[in-house]
Formats: sequence, structure tokens, C-alpha cells
Amino acid sequence: MTHNKGIIAVISGFSGAGKGTVVNGLTSRYGYSVSISATTRTPRQGEEDGKDYFFKTKKEFEQMIKEEKLIEYAKYVDNYYGTPKDYVFGKINSGQDVLLEIEMQGALQVKKKFPEVSLIFITPPDAAELKNRLVKRGTEKPDVIEKRVMRAVEECSFMPEYDYIMVNDDLEKCITQMHSLIQSLHYTRNNQQLLIDRISSDFKAFMQL
Amino acid sequence: MTHNKGIIAVISGFSGAGKGTVVNGLTSRYGYSVSISATTRTPRQGEEDGKDYFFKTKKEFEQMIKEEKLIEYAKYVDNYYGTPKDYVFGKINSGQDVLLEIEMQGALQVKKKFPEVSLIFITPPDAAELKNRLVKRGTEKPDVIEKRVMRAVEECSFMPEYDYIMVNDDLEKCITQMHSLIQSLHYTRNNQQLLIDRISSDFKAFMQL
Repeated sequence: MTHNKGIIAVISGFSGAGKGTVVNGLTSRYGYSVSISATTRTPRQGEEDGKDYFFKTKKEFEQMIKEEKLIEYAKYVDNYYGTPKDYVFGKINSGQDVLLEIEMQGALQVKKKFPEVSLIFITPPDAAELKNRLVKRGTEKPDVIEKRVMRAVEECSFMPEYDYIMVNDDLEKCITQMHSLIQSLHYTRNNQQLLIDRISSDFKAFMQL
Repeated sequence: MTHNKGIIAVISGFSGAGKGTVVNGLTSRYGYSVSISATTRTPRQGEEDGKDYFFKTKKEFEQMIKEEKLIEYAKYVDNYYGTPKDYVFGKINSGQDVLLEIEMQGALQVKKKFPEVSLIFITPPDAAELKNRLVKRGTEKPDVIEKRVMRAVEECSFMPEYDYIMVNDDLEKCITQMHSLIQSLHYTRNNQQLLIDRISSDFKAFMQL
């Protein structure tokens, strides 16, 4: 019997929902792998190639697009960002579960190409709490915060496209629930195809004994 | 905010997969409600109406079919068996999770009518183990056991219709995993419709402040 493949869980949510903190908690506590993005933007002070990002030239990135080496990609301002296929599939083929923290349009692209992935949406309990968190962070100016809240209003329409929706009210509780949910994804039909095939052929063989 | 509705988990599997034992473990350990079937068959010694079954006359049962008061039903030999809607929906509306242990064709009927339910399939690790368990039970004659194994071979074709498939190799582990899976079902899109509506209208209202 071959070992089971890992599963791919795509995690998105409103800016300020606490996705990053939840994903960090999941990796440090339970050892999940997190997909590393490829980008054409210049490395910032202290950023390492292959750890923070896979840094690529524009030419290299466009070659990756052409050769379909990306699960999803998008262009922001003048830079490309994308999720390399080899890294993610290498991990799941060796039995590791991989988390992809990507924004909503990227998430829907991934689901379309790979229906076996599960899309998980994280939301704060309400709009007031989302704004509170963005204000508390203290990294953005009021007009940027307003824009993020407005964007969240638009993004509400994507929620019904997600497979699972979880409220991040209490961080510890959210991390524990999320781990339990991700482990349960191993039992989905799409992730049990190997088992279905094995059981079916085993029963047929058994009948012929 | 209204409380969340309970969820409906339909559990099926090959005869000998250990469904009954798993369901008993789930109810005694975690307090799940289990749907009680309606039937036209005569009560056996010690069976209680409203506990083991809802005992109905043929006329009453056919009236229930006509009034669409059953989630699913089937006729075996000369008796009807079915799952009453009122009982199940009463439970989930009061926030309790309900388990339905029904055979595969009934399970697929339920899913067709109520797509928000989740179908979970339990399988033994392989055919030899299924046969072992049926033999160990000691309640059936060899020819009945052969028929059950043959039926399992046919039933393999239903596995891909299920939402989740779980191996029952170790009973304790299976009960724990199943509880974790059922709890995760609360986060599925279909079971989070109230949350999606609430968040969407809250964000819209927040924008208009």
C-alpha cells in the first residue's frame, strides 16, 4: 500500500481576518508546510530566496506561466506573484499537507484547475471587529483602512464559493478548529480516490478466490 | 444572533464495517442524537415505540409518504422503513447534530432532497477483514455471509457518491476521527448560510454608517 498523499488547503479571508496569524499558528504548532510564492519584485532587506519567496526575473516568471508551472498567478502594480506547482505537488506527493494563503481570485483559480483542493474562508465575527483589528495593527492610515473595509464588502460575494467558512473570534480556538478541519479533509471523496480504487479492486479480487 | 442549526450526518457502509458500533460510540461519548426510524413491522420483545422505532400501521405509513413526512423510505420484504422528517428537523432546529445510519440507496435519496446533509461512508480496511468480522459476529450462516460480501462488492460502486470515506481499522480511532469530522461539517458552506447572510448584511450596514 502506498502512503496517502497530503492535502492542499487554500486559506483566504478579508484583510484583517487574521489569516497570517492563523497560518503561522498552524505551521508552528502542527508542522504544516506553507507554499512559498514566486515573485518578480525585488527582495527586501533580510528576505531569503526559497524561504520568503522564490525570486524570479520577469523573463523567468513569464516562462513559468508559459510552461504552466504555476497553480495560480496575478500581477499587482508591476510585479508578478504566483504559486509554483512543483513545490506544492512535491510536498503533497511526499505525504505532507500544504497550506496556501492566497487572495480570493487566486483561490478560485486554484479550485477551478484542481477541484480536489479545499477552499477555507476566514472571517472576523463582524465588520466593526474587522475595522478594530486594522486600526490596532497601526500599520495603515485611515483612508487605507476605509479602502480595506470597502473591499471586504465587495469580497462578501465570494464567500459562497468557498467550501468551508470559519469565524476567527478567538485565535487559539480558531487554530485548533482549523487543524481539526484540515485533518478531516483527508476523508473527502476527492482525497480518498486511492482508497476507493484499492477497496474496489480488493473486493473484486476477493470474490474470485 | 440566532443559534446555529445542528447538522445532519448520514452514515452508511458495508454490512460488517462496524457502523452501528461507531454510531453507538458517538452517541454515548459525545451525545449526538440518532434518528429513529418509522416502520410497519411488528415490535419485537422489549422494543419501545419512540425509542427503538416509531411503530406505524401500513395505512399510517402510507399517509406519511403521501404527506412527504419522510426524508427517505424503502420497503423490505413486506414492511416499510423510513426516516421521519419532523424528528430530524426538530433536533437540528434546536441546535443538535443528528446522525442517520441508513443504507446506501436511502442515503443517496436523502442527499438528493437535502443537499446540505453530508454522506459519510465507513469501510473496513479490506475484504478479508470484512469477512472476518461477519464470521466473528456469529449471527449469520456461511451462505448469508457470502451474500453480504457479494453485496459489498456491488456497493463499492456507490463509494464515489459519498462526501467522506473513512476506514474503520481501529474502533477507538475511528470514533474520535468521526467526531472530529462531524464537528468540521459545521463549517461547510451549506451549513454556514446563516453566517454568510449575517456577515454580508453587517458589512453593508457598516458601510452606510
